[in-house]
Amino acid sequence: MERALDTQIDEAKRLILIMAGSVELALFEATEALLGRNSSKLKNIHQIENKINEDHIKIDECCLNILAKQSPVAKDLRIILSILKINTDLERMGDQCTNIAYTTQDYLSRKDLQQVSLISEMSEFVRTMVKKSLDCFVRGDAVGAKSILVMDDEVDERKNRVFRELCEHMKKNPDDVDASLDLILIARNFERLGDHATNIAEDVIFAYTGSDIRHGGKSGS
Amino acid sequence: MERALDTQIDEAKRLILIMAGSVELALFEATEALLGRNSSKLKNIHQIENKINEDHIKIDECCLNILAKQSPVAKDLRIILSILKINTDLERMGDQCTNIAYTTQDYLSRKDLQQVSLISEMSEFVRTMVKKSLDCFVRGDAVGAKSILVMDDEVDERKNRVFRELCEHMKKNPDDVDASLDLILIARNFERLGDHATNIAEDVIFAYTGSDIRHGGKSGS
Repeated sequence: MERALDTQIDEAKRLILIMAGSVELALFEATEALLGRNSSKLKNIHQIENKINEDHIKIDECCLNILAKQSPVAKDLRIILSILKINTDLERMGDQCTNIAYTTQDYLSRKDLQQVSLISEMSEFVRTMVKKSLDCFVRGDAVGAKSILVMDDEVDERKNRVFRELCEHMKKNPDDVDASLDLILIARNFERLGDHATNIAEDVIFAYTGSDIRHGGKSGS
Repeated sequence: MERALDTQIDEAKRLILIMAGSVELALFEATEALLGRNSSKLKNIHQIENKINEDHIKIDECCLNILAKQSPVAKDLRIILSILKINTDLERMGDQCTNIAYTTQDYLSRKDLQQVSLISEMSEFVRTMVKKSLDCFVRGDAVGAKSILVMDDEVDERKNRVFRELCEHMKKNPDDVDASLDLILIARNFERLGDHATNIAEDVIFAYTGSDIRHGGKSGS
């Protein structure tokens, strides 16, 4: 017979997946708005953000109830704590998507720059990272989660390239300062989204192996 | 007779305060390095960051042990969950300080811009916010914590001013693009630090009143 605790953990996981789906959608819409120069897509992001915020509170309450009523230990406790942390990360990913939407709104009022193609590549890469990290969470796949950690360096490298190219562009084209800065800030948001996906991967590893590998550590607990 | 649970919660709080002290120190050193054009202070920040990361793991372990062995409920459980969240925020504040240190390293190799004074004011304001949020945590002062939430708008306004002024400066002085962008990124880091102080204030309110006021909510739980 399935334990009540298992049913409740499954419910918390289900809520996380719904929230993660919203984050992926917001990320997709933000990228489409930017590349397709389609500002009508931006208002969808604010609606999705509201949904993400509602789910954020719902998941925290769900975990609090499980902790208070079921007093989970060992792996079950680690999974609940990981869900709480992933919940925080997803909520902040929603904030990043909203920031991208605001900056995109500004960008769309200016001349398009060819460097936007670098953001397009960065977005695709980060969206893969986000999707992978959540897939690993669903499958309890700590090995897969480890492969995500390496991807974070690639995101940083791509962001650095955007920074370098747009700095040079601004020096030669002072009229494009505003548009360049918009893309720099959006690249920064994507970098932060990559960081959050990395946090999720670390939480998956901790939940399913008990190893805390953050900050280069290898300790089991 | 004091409960074992109280002693353990006090220990977790003590660790949080040590970590918070490190964050405040890193923030102070970063600002001193930037304003005093003193790059030797920057290596202190990397040492402090290592200490913050060690404390981060230690506090998570401490909370996990309390949850596993004491099965706290009601206010005690909310306090433990708040400590876990504040721990995450403090660790990310450490990351922001490190980012400021890296960007400051670049900035110090360039011509100083007068707009650095705006960053100085922003830093002082954010440091007050950080200190206040931690004081409220120590005193369990939910009313004081509410006053911090308002300060976040002021931080955003100050960041916007830095952005506006430096955008104009870059347009007229293309040679100062690199230095201007450094200050813009540092202003962004300070804005994020203000966000984390706000998160801490929200966690204090939740821990001591049971009200989840995030995302404009007023629900008690």
